[in-house]
Amino acid sequence: MTAEDKDGRISAAIVNWVTQASFKPPLVAVSVKADSQIYDIVKTAGNFALNVLGKRQHGTAYAFFKPAERERDGQKISYKPFRAGSTGAPVLENTPAFVVCRLVTTVEEGDHSIFVGKVVDAGVTQEPEGRADEVTLLLKELREKTFLQRLIGKIL
Amino acid sequence: MTAEDKDGRISAAIVNWVTQASFKPPLVAVSVKADSQIYDIVKTAGNFALNVLGKRQHGTAYAFFKPAERERDGQKISYKPFRAGSTGAPVLENTPAFVVCRLVTTVEEGDHSIFVGKVVDAGVTQEPEGRADEVTLLLKELREKTFLQRLIGKIL
Repeated sequence: MTAEDKDGRISAAIVNWVTQASFKPPLVAVSVKADSQIYDIVKTAGNFALNVLGKRQHGTAYAFFKPAERERDGQKISYKPFRAGSTGAPVLENTPAFVVCRLVTTVEEGDHSIFVGKVVDAGVTQEPEGRADEVTLLLKELREKTFLQRLIGKIL
Repeated sequence: MTAEDKDGRISAAIVNWVTQASFKPPLVAVSVKADSQIYDIVKTAGNFALNVLGKRQHGTAYAFFKPAERERDGQKISYKPFRAGSTGAPVLENTPAFVVCRLVTTVEEGDHSIFVGKVVDAGVTQEPEGRADEVTLLLKELREKTFLQRLIGKIL
């Protein structure tokens, strides 16, 4: 997940609690840690992008488990190049697909808050040969027998 | 997803747009068709159960793509036995795991609404030998190269 506020502050974070939530309009629901930088910036910006990682993008995944750092030239986050998406949210280059959303509402009920976003733009870099979900990186592929909570526990 | 209202009306439906949404309290987010029977009954009942299907439970999955029917003796939905969970919501027998939730809030923004539920009870029938997510039935295993929208289109 990537976002940029009006002051040019950028954030990027790995999110795994993501689901489509409606066909019409196309909505997604994404749950993020309520005391995180990505939460603050999405809330302030009112929009965000989801960047789907590919099977071999373990390095990108690990890069974004750590706090995002913008490089001086401004076009890389944590050494990964990006461009501005249609809402201004950063869209990572070199990923199989992206979804750009405007924030519709936020559910603040737990240690993670749920962002509900309306999809305003989306793209596929290269049409996959088989099922689209077979080219995307899964959390369980990052480390054998590792679940999100344990993984985060080991990295932080 | 299963639910029962105060008048004993029961509903059951296949849901695939499901994600955990918080650790503390444990929350889940589930998106369901806004004009469906399951939506009405969950909304009225204020609680629901999620029943995780196992790898070989294709039959159960297909049974619940159709409108749920309660049998006369009252302890089967669409020929599948259930018991009352801790909130009164029906919990299917013979599934690997279940989660019982109280409805915390509903997001009504599209053709599907998002139910946010607080987990009040959960159980595992038999501890899986490997990863828990390897014993659960995936939507893509119901029919090769089939996605939810196409599948529903064919069945309805």
